[in-house]
This record gives sequence, C-alpha cells and structure tokens, in this order.
Amino acid sequence: MPRNLDLHPDRLLPVEPSVRALARELYASVKDLPIISPHGHTDPRWFAGNETFGNATDLLLVPDHYVFRMLYSQGVAMEDLGVRNKTVDPRAAWRLFAQAYWLFRGTPSRMWLDWVFAEAFGMGVQLCAETSDLYFDTITEMLATDSFRPRALFDRYNLEVLATTESPIDTLEHHVAIRAENGKAAGWKGRVITAYRPDPVVDPEFEGFRANLDTLTELTGEDCLTWAGYLAAHRTRRAFFKSMGATSTDHGHPTAATANLSAAEAEALFGRVIAGGCSAADAELFRAQMLTEMAGMSIDDGLVMQIHPGSFRNHNAAVFERFGRDKGADIPTRTDFVHALKPLLDKFGNDRNLSIILFTLDESAYARELAPLAGHYPCLKLGPAWWFHDSPEGMKRFRHMTTETAGFYNTVGFNDDTRAFLSIPARHDVARRIDCGFLAQLVMEHRIEDWEAAELAQDLSYNLAKKAYKL
Amino acid sequence: MPRNLDLHPDRLLPVEPSVRALARELYASVKDLPIISPHGHTDPRWFAGNETFGNATDLLLVPDHYVFRMLYSQGVAMEDLGVRNKTVDPRAAWRLFAQAYWLFRGTPSRMWLDWVFAEAFGMGVQLCAETSDLYFDTITEMLATDSFRPRALFDRYNLEVLATTESPIDTLEHHVAIRAENGKAAGWKGRVITAYRPDPVVDPEFEGFRANLDTLTELTGEDCLTWAGYLAAHRTRRAFFKSMGATSTDHGHPTAATANLSAAEAEALFGRVIAGGCSAADAELFRAQMLTEMAGMSIDDGLVMQIHPGSFRNHNAAVFERFGRDKGADIPTRTDFVHALKPLLDKFGNDRNLSIILFTLDESAYARELAPLAGHYPCLKLGPAWWFHDSPEGMKRFRHMTTETAGFYNTVGFNDDTRAFLSIPARHDVARRIDCGFLAQLVMEHRIEDWEAAELAQDLSYNLAKKAYKL
Amino acid sequence: MPRNLDLHPDRLLPVEPSVRALARELYASVKDLPIISPHGHTDPRWFAGNETFGNATDLLLVPDHYVFRMLYSQGVAMEDLGVRNKTVDPRAAWRLFAQAYWLFRGTPSRMWLDWVFAEAFGMGVQLCAETSDLYFDTITEMLATDSFRPRALFDRYNLEVLATTESPIDTLEHHVAIRAENGKAAGWKGRVITAYRPDPVVDPEFEGFRANLDTLTELTGEDCLTWAGYLAAHRTRRAFFKSMGATSTDHGHPTAATANLSAAEAEALFGRVIAGGCSAADAELFRAQMLTEMAGMSIDDGLVMQIHPGSFRNHNAAVFERFGRDKGADIPTRTDFVHALKPLLDKFGNDRNLSIILFTLDESAYARELAPLAGHYPCLKLGPAWWFHDSPEGMKRFRHMTTETAGFYNTVGFNDDTRAFLSIPARHDVARRIDCGFLAQLVMEHRIEDWEAAELAQDLSYNLAKKAYKL
Repeated sequence: MPRNLDLHPDRLLPVEPSVRALARELYASVKDLPIISPHGHTDPRWFAGNETFGNATDLLLVPDHYVFRMLYSQGVAMEDLGVRNKTVDPRAAWRLFAQAYWLFRGTPSRMWLDWVFAEAFGMGVQLCAETSDLYFDTITEMLATDSFRPRALFDRYNLEVLATTESPIDTLEHHVAIRAENGKAAGWKGRVITAYRPDPVVDPEFEGFRANLDTLTELTGEDCLTWAGYLAAHRTRRAFFKSMGATSTDHGHPTAATANLSAAEAEALFGRVIAGGCSAADAELFRAQMLTEMAGMSIDDGLVMQIHPGSFRNHNAAVFERFGRDKGADIPTRTDFVHALKPLLDKFGNDRNLSIILFTLDESAYARELAPLAGHYPCLKLGPAWWFHDSPEGMKRFRHMTTETAGFYNTVGFNDDTRAFLSIPARHDVARRIDCGFLAQLVMEHRIEDWEAAELAQDLSYNLAKKAYKL
Repeated sequence: MPRNLDLHPDRLLPVEPSVRALARELYASVKDLPIISPHGHTDPRWFAGNETFGNATDLLLVPDHYVFRMLYSQGVAMEDLGVRNKTVDPRAAWRLFAQAYWLFRGTPSRMWLDWVFAEAFGMGVQLCAETSDLYFDTITEMLATDSFRPRALFDRYNLEVLATTESPIDTLEHHVAIRAENGKAAGWKGRVITAYRPDPVVDPEFEGFRANLDTLTELTGEDCLTWAGYLAAHRTRRAFFKSMGATSTDHGHPTAATANLSAAEAEALFGRVIAGGCSAADAELFRAQMLTEMAGMSIDDGLVMQIHPGSFRNHNAAVFERFGRDKGADIPTRTDFVHALKPLLDKFGNDRNLSIILFTLDESAYARELAPLAGHYPCLKLGPAWWFHDSPEGMKRFRHMTTETAGFYNTVGFNDDTRAFLSIPARHDVARRIDCGFLAQLVMEHRIEDWEAAELAQDLSYNLAKKAYKL
Repeated sequence: MPRNLDLHPDRLLPVEPSVRALARELYASVKDLPIISPHGHTDPRWFAGNETFGNATDLLLVPDHYVFRMLYSQGVAMEDLGVRNKTVDPRAAWRLFAQAYWLFRGTPSRMWLDWVFAEAFGMGVQLCAETSDLYFDTITEMLATDSFRPRALFDRYNLEVLATTESPIDTLEHHVAIRAENGKAAGWKGRVITAYRPDPVVDPEFEGFRANLDTLTELTGEDCLTWAGYLAAHRTRRAFFKSMGATSTDHGHPTAATANLSAAEAEALFGRVIAGGCSAADAELFRAQMLTEMAGMSIDDGLVMQIHPGSFRNHNAAVFERFGRDKGADIPTRTDFVHALKPLLDKFGNDRNLSIILFTLDESAYARELAPLAGHYPCLKLGPAWWFHDSPEGMKRFRHMTTETAGFYNTVGFNDDTRAFLSIPARHDVARRIDCGFLAQLVMEHRIEDWEAAELAQDLSYNLAKKAYKL
C-alpha cells in the first residue's frame, strides 16, 4: 500500500525543543512574505504566452537536470527519460522516475519535489512504482487547467518579482510581450524581468561565439568585430535590457579570473580572439578582461554584477555530444578568488557605485576567501549557497562559515537559480526554514537577541535580496 | 586506583533525547548484522595457518601505526616501542604505551582500543601506567588460547567476508591454503578473499619496481619488459586473483591522475619507464595510463576498481630510511579529481559494466567534486570516509557533505581498511552508530521517514558494501 | 528606548540541556584561571609608561581593524572613523560606529565588544545611535581614571604573562623599562615579555627591508650585508630578546615554504637578495631558507618557533597606499603545508629539542595536512584557530577537524593574537566557553569521561599554553 505523503510543519527546523520552538516562531513570521527571485533560469515565454504546461514528464522530469542526473548515475538511460528524445512515451518515462524515487532520499530534490507534489498538486500518497500512473494522470490533468497556467502559479506563489537570464543576442520578445501585458489596464501585473548574461558573446570557447558576434552586430548596428564597436554593442544591449527591467548582469565563467589590461592590450587580445582558434590562455584572459570591462559599465549604468565561477561545464564528453549542455554533467572545481579578483578590485574595488555579488561552488573559499573579501571591499557581497549547495546542509555551511567574518549584511538573501518553475516556492521555503533555524540557534546560545533574530529573519527572507538587486 | 572501563551502550549516538531514542532503535536493528569487510590489509597467513597471535605488544602496538605515530609525535622513540626492533622487551614497550594512553583522548584509536580491551579481552579497568602489566599479562595469556586464534575471532565477530590486498607478484599461497581448508568437509568455512593491488608493478617509483617486473615475468611466463607482455601478465594475474575470490582491484596512487594515451604512446612510455631512471613526470603519466588500462580490464573481467589517491607516502625521510614504509608518516595532500579523472571518464565513464569506487583524504573534494561526479557518472561510486577520516567526525562530515548531491545509493557502505584485525568489529561498530545517528537526525528533522531510515540503516551497514563489491 | 545590555551567563554553551549543564560546570572550573597570552600585538609602551588610554574612539575603534573593516565594507570611509586621520572629531567617529553597530550581529567582534562594554565599562544599555554619546562619554571618562591604566587592567584581568611581538631592529626600550619596574621592590610585577618577529629583516619584500638591514648592522655590530654577519646578528638579537623574556619567535610569511639550501647556495641567494630588486622567486626562496635557519637557531637557544602563513597582505592597493598596513585588507589564501614544510622537516623534523607551532587561515588544511603532520612529527604542534577563525564557529571547526588525528596534546591552548588590549580577556573567555562546550559534548556522547573533560578543560585553558611556550 502506498505511504501517505505529509509535509511535516516542522521539517528542517532544529530538533532541540527550545530551538525548534523559536525557529517555528521565526519561520511563521516570514513564511508568507512575497518571494523575491532575482536570479533564475525560467522561460519568459511561459509568462508571455501563458500557455498551459504539458504533461508531468515534460514539466517535472525532462527539464530538471538535478533529477535525471541521479537517475543516470544509477544506470537509467537519459533517452528513456525523454531527454532530447521526443519519441519516448512520457508515461513510461515517468514510471522509470517513480520506481527509482527512493534514490533521492536525503537530497534536496526529494524535498522540493515532495513539496510540489503535496502543495501544488495535492497528492496525498508518496511517489513510487505503484503510484506512478496516479501521479502522472493527476498532475497532467491539473496542468491542463487554468489555475495551473504560468501566470496563475506566479500569483498563487506570491512572486513579487522574477528575473530570468538572457543573452545579449536574445531579442527579449517575451519580455516585450510581458511588459505590454503589464501595461494593459486589465492586464496581468506580474513582474518578470530579464538579466544580462553575456557569456555567449564574451566567452571565446562558447559554442557559436563568432556567429553570436555577427548577430550582435546585426542587433546593435555596431561593428562587433572591432573592439570599440564590440564594447559599444554591450552598452547598447545593457541599456535595452535595463529597459526590460534588468537590474543585474550574470557571468558564468570557468574561473573567477579578472584582468586589467591597457586599452591597447585589450584591443590586441580582442583581435586574436575574433581571428578564431585563439589559445586557451587567450580565451581565459579575454573572459577575465571582460569582467573588468563589465564592472566599468556597471558603475555607469548601475546594473548589479553577479559572478558565478568554478564549474567545469559539460565534463562528460559523450553526454555533451549527444544531449548538449546542462545535462547534469557540470562539475565544480577548486576556485581561487584572492588572486583572481585582484585586477578588477585594484581598478574598481573601492567604488561605492559598484556592486558585485560573488557565488562559489567551492565551499573551502567561504571562510578563507569570500567572507574576508566581502567583509572588507565596499563593492563585494556574497551570494547565497549555490547550485549543489542550495540544500539544507549547504545553506547551514554557508551561514556557519561566512557570518562571523562577513556578517549577515554582506550577504544578499536567497536566490533559487532554477529552471524548474514550481521548485521556486519550495526552494525559498527551504531557505527560510534553514535561516530561521540558524537564527534560533544563535539566540539560544545567546549570541544575538530574539528581536534581532526577528529582524534578521525578515532581512534574509526578503529585504536583503530586494536591496542587493535594487528591486 | 584505576578507573573502571565501561563501554556505554549509547556511545557516539546523538545527545538530543528524541534523536538518541530513534538512533538507539536503528542501531539495535543493525548491530548484529554480519560484517562485510571488502577492503583491508590483514595478513592472510593468519587464517591459513591459524597460529596464535603473540603477546599484547606484538598484536596491538607494533603493527598499528595509528598508535605509535601519536606516541612518536610526543617524543617516544619508535625503537623503544618495538618497531623494527626485536630486542625490546615487549612488556617495557607496553608500559610506554600504557603510561601515555591519555594522549589518545578524543581520538578514534582510543575508542577502538577500549572496545578491544573491553569486548575482546574483558578488561574491566582502564589502561594506564598502573594497569599496564595487568593488561599485558591478561591479553598475552588470552592470546595463547584457542578462542583467540584468528579463525575463532573471525567467527566470533561474525565476519561474512574479509578481503585482504595482495600484489600481483604475491603467490597467494595463503589464500590457496584457505580455499583448500574451506573445501574440506569439516574445514573452516570463513570467507577470506584477496584483492588485486598492482602498485608494486605499476608505480615506477615503488621500491624494487624493476625487479618486481622480473618476478611478474617469472610468475606469468609473459615477457613483462614488452608492453604487450606486461598487459597480458596483468590479465593473467587478475584471472588468478579472481580464482582466489578477488572481486576488486585497489590502486594507491599519489594523485588521481588518469591518462588516455594511444597504444603507440603508451608503449613508448612503457619503454622509457622500464629503461630505468624515468622522470617524475613519466612516472606520473605511467601510473595515470595504467589506471585507464586497469579500467579497461575491469570492464572485461568485472573486477571493481578502487582508487585511493592523495597520500604523500613516507613524508619523514629519516623515519622511512630507518623504519621503512607505513610508519605513520603518510600525509594527505590536496587532491583534484575533476581534471584528473577526465581522461579515464572520457574513455569509459558511461560504461555501465565498469564500477569505480573513489576514496579521498581531501575532504574539501567531498561536496565540491566527488559527490557531483558520483551523482552523474554511472561508473562512479564513493568509498566511505577513509583512513584519518575513518572516525566519528570524519564519518559525519562524509554524510553531511556527500548525501545531498550523491544520495546514499552512490556510496558503498563501510570499509575498515585496517591491518589491525581486532579493530575491524570496533570500526564497523563505530560506523553503524554514526550512520544510525545521522539517519535519526534526518528523521527528526522530517527529511526522511522512519521506515526509510530503517531500510537505509540496513543498506549502509550491510547491503551496499555487499552489492558494490559484488560479494 | 535603548535595549538592556546583559551578558547571559550561558552564552556560547551548547543548547541541549544535559550538555549545557556539564559545559557550565566545566566552564565554572576554568573561568577564573589566570590568562596566558603567549602571542599578541599589544604595545609594550602601555605597560612601560602606564599612561592613561585616550578616548573611546582612540582605544576601541581606530586600532581595531576587525571593526573598521566591517564598517568600510558597508561604505563608511576610514578617514571618517579617524584611521590615519587626526582631524576627525572622535565623538563623530564613534557615532558612525554606534549607528552601524547592528552590522556586527553574529560576529565575534560583537561578542568581544559587548563584553568590554559590559564587563570593563559597566554599560547597562546596548550600543546604538541613541546611546552613542553616553557610551563615548562614559568610556572616555573611565579611561582617564587610574583603574583604567594599562597595569591596573593587566592585573584586574589576571594576566599571568603577556607576550608582545617586536622586530629585531626594535630596541625593546619599553621591555627594558618594564623589567626595571619589575625589579623594583615595590614595582609592578606584571610579566610582559617580547617575541622575536624577524619579518622586517627576513622578507626582502617588506617595506624598508634594505634599510632595516643597516639598522640591524648598527644594533649588533655585525656586518649584515654578509651572510655570516647577518646570521650572527640574528643570533645576537635572539639572545637579547631572550634576555627580555622572549620564549618564542614568530614568522608571518605569505606561504609555509621552507628550503634547505647548502651554505654556498644560501650565501649566493643572500647576495642576490641584498643587491636589491631580487625576483619574487628569490624573495620566496629566501624567506623559505630563513625559516630553516631560524629552526636551527631555535634548536640552539630553545626559542619556540611560530609560523603564521597564508595571508595575502595589503590586498587592497588603494587602501594600502593611503592608510598603510593592517587595515583589514589582508585576505587568506589556500596554503600547502605538506610540500612546503618538507625541506625544514627533512633537516630538523625529528629533533625533540625543536618546537614549531603552526597556524593556518586555510581550514581545509586542518584535517588534511596539519593534524596528520602534528600527529606524527615530534617538533610540530598546532596553534589554535587564528585571526578570522578566532571565533566560536572557527574554534569548533578547529576542534572537530584536528582532535581525532592530532589529539588534544599536539595543540597548544589558546592565543588571542590581538592588538586590542581589552579584547584579551573577552577572547579567552570565548575560547574557554567553546572548549568546555566541545568537551561536554564528547562526554555526553560517551567519547571521553567526565574526569577527563575536567582535566582537559584545565589543559586547554591554561596548562598547554604555558607548557608549549615554555612559560
């Protein structure tokens, strides 16, 4: 007989009764705050078109690399799950997932999914082989209803603002449409904004880099094969992104390297880069220089800069070749910030008009490098526990390792950074629970006072993200 | 007056009463499960000959580098403890140990030893200067009795299977003898198997490498000074090891480097290596290439591959010169897996017939590299907290840092990895206690359910090791 | 209305009631032990002259880079706080601090400062904008009284011994004066000693290195532009420092690199170094060689050697240029010990007359490198959690990550390492609380016994530091 699915009201709160009691109280005070989602990868088309989502597999399995990577690690073929394979029966794919759902025990995916199953779809039994079809049918049917259209879900989960990320060569047509809708008297008022993610035109090793420059030229009228034109095109697109609500840029680089070349050196480097076949060292140096260039533009236009370094993308060559990017095969690497950021910081580090949010996948840098850097430089803030570390233990390590040196106020609240739309409220809920537990622990150890914890709970759940991202 | 020695039934279980109550229940359900010991360094001669062990010093002090390294760090000379010194009075050596036993406070050695003293030898008082002779006499006398012979202890501690590790140039005579004994109608049925550890013929920097190749040639009839003959000899010996029960190979390399050379490049490298005096870079490259060769052979013969990288062996030059290997002077180093394993993974990473178990001494790689790798690649699993980290805190860190990304089912249960025979049940007991405490904590934080914890307790204590090592 | 300031008697003790009860008992047994402060950066002039301290800002804000770095990170200009700026109104600077005091929530600075405010100055309300002037006036007035003179505070806080650190070219005039005072029949008996910190004459990249050598020549009469004279000058100054109570040397290097050059190589290197403009590699090699030279001298004169590696000093170029050293812009870096220390250890590692205390800012080295090294080499001990890690969480991580491999007795108790005099008792209080909490946890998990915890509490609070520093 299938097991009941119940989300315990105290889940993720510390066990010790006095700490739990306080954590529960703090959590109650923040659980209904609106969600600020300043960084993520949902599809703006959803909110522009407001079409219904497809079936359970299309919504919850195929796009979620957290889920299929685990299944793949245990021998399930990705094509059988429907990844890059339209011929698979979605119900059959869902069964593969359902019968292996126990693999997720102890993982955040399990917590997010159970939240989605119980809260969004009202499932009362747990997912397993036996309940697979019940789940598939129930979810698929509900998705066909109006109350499960993207805008309805956006409103239902109290999203105050949601940022997507787009490349400079994206036309932002969906954002244009959303803003048009927003502008109608009776239109939907949901605030969906973009963020400027220039990797495809900044990283010489990105697939299609050279062609992307041509597109950028077309979009901007600037000659992007000249250094001056290329920089001007960035400025043009940044301004357009700002007009579509962007308050930030996002940079997903292999390392945190920055550079501070002279104008002549930078121009020469750009020449080598566009000539094609530049060396790995030149590619790295160009990305490094571009972070500094982007920082300079941020000082001018006020966009907050996010740096997400340290992922070895597409580590599995065969998977990349067959299935493409973002298939769960990105692996974190050791990441240096102290030497890497110095060129940029030497140039702009003391400028109070610059705001850079740093993320890492290398937790050994939290206490050693990131908290000391953010606890000194006016331009630096720490982004929350990210990606693999967007998890209960990851969040606890983040707070334990950064708070004493950086304080709470050099951090920026929570980002979900997800392409799984329904996991957004689930993820914010986890973050609020963990932060409230952490604060309750500090109070019960008499390290802060209860009224301070109450203020901090609001700040960490809502205020800091809003302020850091200028929302 | 000496203090009583009592092993508290709740030792190592979490303190919070509700968590402890559940942990106690989980532990009760697994504490009597048979022991699977798939990786260790006990001496097969013990089980082949079944001779009595010698005195207390010979059994518990001289072979245990965890113990004498601590004494050495505090100024006790190794020769006074009987290390490589047959002239020392074992009772005097034991006294040096007894009077310094307080140095071990807070260490796992203390817990294992107290377990051995109390459980195996029935000591009711603690070890200290005053009780030194009592200990020495009691233990030495008991060791002379039949119930303390190796096979009796093997049975008493419910070992279902015990793997030793041998080099390809070992004749496995003791394993032959054990299997002969196993085959007798009234013979001892204990399952002691070997594992294939080719370091002495794979690592050009190993003492006697070149002579080892000659021995390998003699044993196999293959010309091990040719690349083809050398590889064929490995295949021959692997088959022989399999016939002696081996289900795994073991590779103790300085780094996790792998390579994927062409056949011609590999052969040329082999030529440089056997010519003698090859460069450090060639030695590293050869070890790297051999991991990939071994992976290929594992796909053919099904042996599970274990990689134990990251120890700077024999760091203390003077100690190595005087006392030899394995004298407590191996020091862990920072270890990269992401770049190091890529050549092997590019070649074989998606092959479901390959199974590689990764160990590390660099805990910063748990959450950053190892859990993401094992949570994606079908061929990778994570070995348990190893060596210095085979300890209560080490095990907790392992679970906290790997579970959220790799799940439980990309890990392989517990290995003791010891040459201290009597510590085997003590070590498995610690692991079961810590895992049950961890699971109980997850339940009380409502992250998994109680019935899941009960299943997981069985899996982590018994099932996973059995399955991962194909036992 | 301002909030009351109350230091809770149980602050920092674990929350679980049984653990807290035992921790409280252990803490009660050590809280009044005298303070051993074997490593710090207070000004010996204070104790020589015994002048009153100035105002609140001069004592508590301007010299404390932990404090103004946080304010700076949030956009407060250092010059407005009075850093390198005599023209600022100290009351106005204090207000900037007071109104931003909430930034320190969750940081150790907050705990130390609240201790100083409540315990030393008897403040009953919390620091905030509203109480800023009350604080400034109260503290400033009290500082003008005799009971707040340096010697009175030294006695009041039960300092048994306090070490300062001086460069070889310091004349130690204040220490001479203190010892003269100590020698008077009715003189002050406080024990203030020096420590030998040769960085300014050992690090070719130190500001004024070459001029410092000239000063060293003048002070010693040795020709410090010859290798032999330079080494002789060190010996001479070390002897003088010893006569001023020194029992230790201190080495703050960018890395832990050591070298073991032949005499001829070392002399040639010295030649390049004093010629000026030596390469970065030569500078690093010279510092490395000097650690080994210093170790050799320590074997002769018995001074305990402290190595503090891994800080990227003066990371913020603009701040360094304007405000100089020690302005909160030193950032830790990844630090290798295993390879770095080997040359020194190969030469002296087994010498029981040598004692080296290692510190790190890279916590990933605790369990991986430092505990294994200290748990083997007779000459090595581990210094406590340092600098950014001198904090409740930092201390817990230190114990959790070092104890199992190094034990307690390869550590050396607590050092405050501060230039903020009044924070000394606050810092020792934090350390004692955290250690007692850790010990209580071990007892309640039945890993050590209560009487052992009681002994260890004394050892960690007092005995180990006294012994390790030969005080």
